Amino acid sequence: MKIINGNITTPKGFKATGLASGIKQSGKPDLAILLSDTPASAAGVYTTNKTTAAPIRITREHLENPSLRGVVVNSGNANASTGKLGLENAVKMTEFAASKYSLNADDFAVASTGVIGVQLPLETIEAGIEQIEITEDGGSLFADAILTTDTFKKEVCVDVDGKYTIAGCAKGSGMIHPNMGTMLSFITTDASIHPTELHHLLKEVTDVTFNQITVDGDTSTNDTVVVLANGASGVEAGSEFKEALELVMGELARMIAKDGEGATKLIEVEVVNALDFSDARMAAKAVVGSSLVKAAMYGEDPNWGRIMCAVGYSGAEVDPDICDVDLQGIKVFENGTPIEFDVQAMSKELKKDFVKIVIDFKQGAEKGKAWGCDLTYDYVKINALYTT
Amino acid sequence: MKIINGNITTPKGFKATGLASGIKQSGKPDLAILLSDTPASAAGVYTTNKTTAAPIRITREHLENPSLRGVVVNSGNANASTGKLGLENAVKMTEFAASKYSLNADDFAVASTGVIGVQLPLETIEAGIEQIEITEDGGSLFADAILTTDTFKKEVCVDVDGKYTIAGCAKGSGMIHPNMGTMLSFITTDASIHPTELHHLLKEVTDVTFNQITVDGDTSTNDTVVVLANGASGVEAGSEFKEALELVMGELARMIAKDGEGATKLIEVEVVNALDFSDARMAAKAVVGSSLVKAAMYGEDPNWGRIMCAVGYSGAEVDPDICDVDLQGIKVFENGTPIEFDVQAMSKELKKDFVKIVIDFKQGAEKGKAWGCDLTYDYVKINALYTT
Repeated sequence: MKIINGNITTPKGFKATGLASGIKQSGKPDLAILLSDTPASAAGVYTTNKTTAAPIRITREHLENPSLRGVVVNSGNANASTGKLGLENAVKMTEFAASKYSLNADDFAVASTGVIGVQLPLETIEAGIEQIEITEDGGSLFADAILTTDTFKKEVCVDVDGKYTIAGCAKGSGMIHPNMGTMLSFITTDASIHPTELHHLLKEVTDVTFNQITVDGDTSTNDTVVVLANGASGVEAGSEFKEALELVMGELARMIAKDGEGATKLIEVEVVNALDFSDARMAAKAVVGSSLVKAAMYGEDPNWGRIMCAVGYSGAEVDPDICDVDLQGIKVFENGTPIEFDVQAMSKELKKDFVKIVIDFKQGAEKGKAWGCDLTYDYVKINALYTT
Repeated sequence: MKIINGNITTPKGFKATGLASGIKQSGKPDLAILLSDTPASAAGVYTTNKTTAAPIRITREHLENPSLRGVVVNSGNANASTGKLGLENAVKMTEFAASKYSLNADDFAVASTGVIGVQLPLETIEAGIEQIEITEDGGSLFADAILTTDTFKKEVCVDVDGKYTIAGCAKGSGMIHPNMGTMLSFITTDASIHPTELHHLLKEVTDVTFNQITVDGDTSTNDTVVVLANGASGVEAGSEFKEALELVMGELARMIAKDGEGATKLIEVEVVNALDFSDARMAAKAVVGSSLVKAAMYGEDPNWGRIMCAVGYSGAEVDPDICDVDLQGIKVFENGTPIEFDVQAMSKELKKDFVKIVIDFKQGAEKGKAWGCDLTYDYVKINALYTT
């Protein structure tokens, strides 16, 4: 299998697009529809935040029957903390889409992202859905219309040995600390797969991809990943499907981390030789989520003590007195003791826009990775000025 | 009881001071000693971070017999992640102090704060301890010498109905997200109290004061609170002691929050009518710790959706659909629904340097508070440039 140029309409039998309906005052695209030509096996994972946004509650209901025809999404407004009217508005979004394509409302998943606590401009959305024209090559327009403070589109497509394709898009940027669900991501495939198996794989892969990234430690109210498998390739998903799904979701997760609000660097943390897989993941995520580690990386300062500090409070089973730490391939801490390193070489390595941290627990054989970004002036700027 | 001008040498029978020994390149004070004229009942609480700094390991040993004569502290170097040599150096600090006053090493607690992963300059410390001259009014010099990136000294003294006094000092600023223990704080009283009772009260009060503040979510490797009660007033601590201790520790906690690295505002979050005390505290701490809430407050933006988002992921038992939120005394969310508010009045309120957020869970009768600060450009600046 390999990554190819493509987007969520590259798998056969999908159409999509996005447009600027006027929800965003900036005039940027803010409304998107994805449609499968035929009913697709569908699975979703969502935020564990108890302040669950209205669209998630509706999508969860619609997925009780794990088959969907499409997805309708808006950006610029999260439709979260919006009470009963918010729920009614989320249902109406699916009704507008259903009416346009002569389908049922529960054939659609619905997702929203943007400011919390403001009611959706429903007439704007209705007019937008009326205008929208989905096409067979509109996947990138869809990916564009779901963005908020993101600085680039996040799309991946994997060709699975010429048999079928899996593609996904995502939006991230702020309020990124997914737990169980994630920010918005939509994945399509023309492989054929049973929805129960699809849901199982989606959960498993989410845990090692989207759930292992963090931008700011804030678990959103709106995190949603929906995958649609319409079988249009005529090929049954085999044992390779999980690897392909992980490739798509892992790439999207890293793109989200790299495009964290204000970020200038992608940080990858790997914990090796942990007793347990969950210890390795937990510690890696704590390090990549530490404000102090993130600020040090922005300052290109090899302040690795902050790394061991975060390992120590992560909750992972660890003996800090035997650990090693590598920063950009240079050993800075060995057997629980600081060691001399080449400061010049380190300084050069830390100027790169990819930072790799490896912590060796020397306790077992499990490993885990997590991804994040540096903490910069621009993160503060974006979030101090992001208008309600 | 009332707060009076005073410091840790205001209670009878304590002497202290601080000086610039040369650990800090800036030439600021960095070494401090506190001594009780007679053996004092002593209790300590420490960080739960598994990467526990060397001085904490030594202090914990010395407190197995819960009586102390004094405390020796340095700033500018945390003596954490420093291996066996670090432990030896922490012991040596207590030996230098003991030798100076013809006492035993285990009569002293030891604490350090500063950069992680660098060995202590032991000769500098030895020379500093030789020079140091403690006095009966040196409490403020001690408080000054334990600071790092703090911008002001943190001291409180409470006069308990003319019977005895309790005083404390603290340092905070960065890597502040205490869990069980806290940043450095030293508390003295001339009341007489059994060490078991003292330890019990210290833990209880820590949970509602120091453990309820956060600056950046990073639980330090060096958090330590030590309290010394020498009984020099001749008065036995009564039932009022806990309230007085909470007054001292609460004031210090709020000072630390207000002086968070780069902060311009103190934020107090109160959760009321929760089912459980721990739910209330957990939710309050999640809100005050949210990078997005903190950045919004810096931007004076009433983006209260971020408050309900943090409540939702806090882990607290809550039904967001019935909650109310007040920001600066102005209701913005009622019964799970956004409500109109006076934007002009809010804008004026948010310019203040104290922000109060109240979330009503409407489920029970328990309440909890937490304190923090806004997230500013200067937090990033301080932590991107803080040299290893």
